[in-house]
Amino acid sequence: MVRQIVEDAKSESGLSTVQTKYFTFAMPPEELLLDCGEKLGPITVAYETYGSLNKEKSNAILILHAFSGDAHAAGWHEGASSPGWWDEMIGPGRAFDTDKYFVICSNVLGGCSGTTGPSSIDPRTGKPFGIDFPSISIPDMVQVQSGLLDHLGIEKLLSVAGGSMGGQQVLEWVVSFPQRLRSAIAIATAAKHSPQQIAFNEVGRQAIMADPNWQDGQFYDSEPPAKGLSVARMIGHITYMSDTSMSKKFGRRTGSNGKTRPFGNGFEVEEYLHHKGLTFVDRFDANSYLYITRAIDDYDASRGGGLAEALRGLEARILVLSFKSDWLYPSHQSQEIIRGCKKAGVDVTCCEISSTYGHDAFLLEVAEQTKLVSHFLERTDELKDIQ
Amino acid sequence: MVRQIVEDAKSESGLSTVQTKYFTFAMPPEELLLDCGEKLGPITVAYETYGSLNKEKSNAILILHAFSGDAHAAGWHEGASSPGWWDEMIGPGRAFDTDKYFVICSNVLGGCSGTTGPSSIDPRTGKPFGIDFPSISIPDMVQVQSGLLDHLGIEKLLSVAGGSMGGQQVLEWVVSFPQRLRSAIAIATAAKHSPQQIAFNEVGRQAIMADPNWQDGQFYDSEPPAKGLSVARMIGHITYMSDTSMSKKFGRRTGSNGKTRPFGNGFEVEEYLHHKGLTFVDRFDANSYLYITRAIDDYDASRGGGLAEALRGLEARILVLSFKSDWLYPSHQSQEIIRGCKKAGVDVTCCEISSTYGHDAFLLEVAEQTKLVSHFLERTDELKDIQ
Repeated sequence: MVRQIVEDAKSESGLSTVQTKYFTFAMPPEELLLDCGEKLGPITVAYETYGSLNKEKSNAILILHAFSGDAHAAGWHEGASSPGWWDEMIGPGRAFDTDKYFVICSNVLGGCSGTTGPSSIDPRTGKPFGIDFPSISIPDMVQVQSGLLDHLGIEKLLSVAGGSMGGQQVLEWVVSFPQRLRSAIAIATAAKHSPQQIAFNEVGRQAIMADPNWQDGQFYDSEPPAKGLSVARMIGHITYMSDTSMSKKFGRRTGSNGKTRPFGNGFEVEEYLHHKGLTFVDRFDANSYLYITRAIDDYDASRGGGLAEALRGLEARILVLSFKSDWLYPSHQSQEIIRGCKKAGVDVTCCEISSTYGHDAFLLEVAEQTKLVSHFLERTDELKDIQ
Repeated sequence: MVRQIVEDAKSESGLSTVQTKYFTFAMPPEELLLDCGEKLGPITVAYETYGSLNKEKSNAILILHAFSGDAHAAGWHEGASSPGWWDEMIGPGRAFDTDKYFVICSNVLGGCSGTTGPSSIDPRTGKPFGIDFPSISIPDMVQVQSGLLDHLGIEKLLSVAGGSMGGQQVLEWVVSFPQRLRSAIAIATAAKHSPQQIAFNEVGRQAIMADPNWQDGQFYDSEPPAKGLSVARMIGHITYMSDTSMSKKFGRRTGSNGKTRPFGNGFEVEEYLHHKGLTFVDRFDANSYLYITRAIDDYDASRGGGLAEALRGLEARILVLSFKSDWLYPSHQSQEIIRGCKKAGVDVTCCEISSTYGHDAFLLEVAEQTKLVSHFLERTDELKDIQ
């Protein structure tokens, strides 16, 4: 029954079975000089591609995932019960139309879904890095993606696109590799984290490190810090939704376990959070949580100065999208990006999309984003021919 | 030096040294029948009073504290370095003017600051209750306060007032003891918690219970679940502030410990949260956290029906205050209370106070609240003479 539903879903015009590929930087010196000053290598990158690269190699789009995402942005893995995380946006006839574009997505540096991260084996010791993994940054993630493009023989991208932390990487691409882009799409993101955003991440980090199973990051031979990671994820989930979307989804309905007193599962929303917390533990590494959230919090696209300074001279076109009910990455942070673009004379288009989904809207508001993104990409493609 | 500053602060027109008093229900049957169906007793109540009760016993105001508050609302305890939690609102010439009114504040049932709660000794075992303490509710808290008024010989209050959970108790006073009130002041509160509010509390509860030191609530002979309670408090603090107030207070300034990588204290806001979390552990009981937040989440002033039904026939005047940047108890929840009052034909006055402090505004926006509250109380007092 489930298999049939899955097969039905797969046959609905989207991409079919896809596979994750792996690329290990093998060129000398085989090591990447990180932002923190340390060297790391060899680095393996997990990535997927959808559609075909054209002869001119001018139709490539790089998709950048959010905090807990991975390389599997679209299509179905063999035997999986759900597709990639942005499947509704990527595929034949979709926003990122694989009939036209060659779409690439890779797992970020520091991640735990195939790309080198703290759970990878440290070649010096033969054991997982744990917190001996060097500090990584959003610019480091982008350096690795740039290396992947070199490997794929792509000099210039038609676009880079991503939401949330993916949007931070988009901004970093714009700032670090402006010559490699024709356009960029930054969704539900910020040029730098506010103290409130940092605070939510820090509480998640503290929850993980408070778990005795964390063991200073060397838990790979024993039980992972499941309770701490679960609490961290629950906090995250609250910030991804809105007051309205939670009210619509749960109201004050009692959970199915009933009101076990004094403080068991009381309301449906609590059970939902427990479930989200527990399932996260199976797919995410607690140390990746620590490293990646730190990279997000530390990131400042403006390099501590004015954003306009960092963007001056940029020829790529920018699309900035935000969502009305997104209180984690509120629209005023997108406005800051837009002001920076305008001040720098960059060709910027922006839209605040009406939605009640909160920050999750970048994953859920498919129709409106499809209209805006597909038109923006078409126009970018046309301009390429004119230039 | 500190002592001099304290003495200077104390001499600034507020109340001087005050003491907490204790009252133990001693009348038969000595036990309170709780909402959950269980009986609890004897119950001790910690309370303070400021000003003098007049001959007619008509000038008493009951102040109701928020989640982590206590009976010490105003004045200074001997040797203390800070005054009571609402000192700026209570004292000679202040909003709750102790030259005119007799002000009472008591620690809630289930609390850990003198009133019977889970850290109290269970008379059946001679040990702290822990999670054998019965489930308590906002109505139970109000029942206990009503017993305290009986003890003090006060039949009818000039007013009840409180913010946040204090506001929930205000609403419960209005619903359960309308004949004992001339007025009520509900600040930054809700008739019932939204799923988002429940979710934040639930993550705090999970953080506490994830700490192995919690030991199913029987930690009183060993180490308390300090890390879990600290994480819970950090989450709370984020929700008490606003995006704006955090940005003003911290910006993206680096913490004084510097950026110890990969995930030590990075930003000042992180150090602030750590400090708030750690100091909370010294003054609050983890089990009280669990019981009281559960009472807050479960509370529904409308008893699951319409609020207007619960309020119909009320003669007391109501003042409802909310704050513009308070996203934990957003103004639309106050609007719901106001709509209920109006539908029930209750005399209600309301104001959304402009503030950037978020939920903390009910503790910090003294000037505006003083104007509104003192005028409301004067008018209530005048109407008493007319009636």
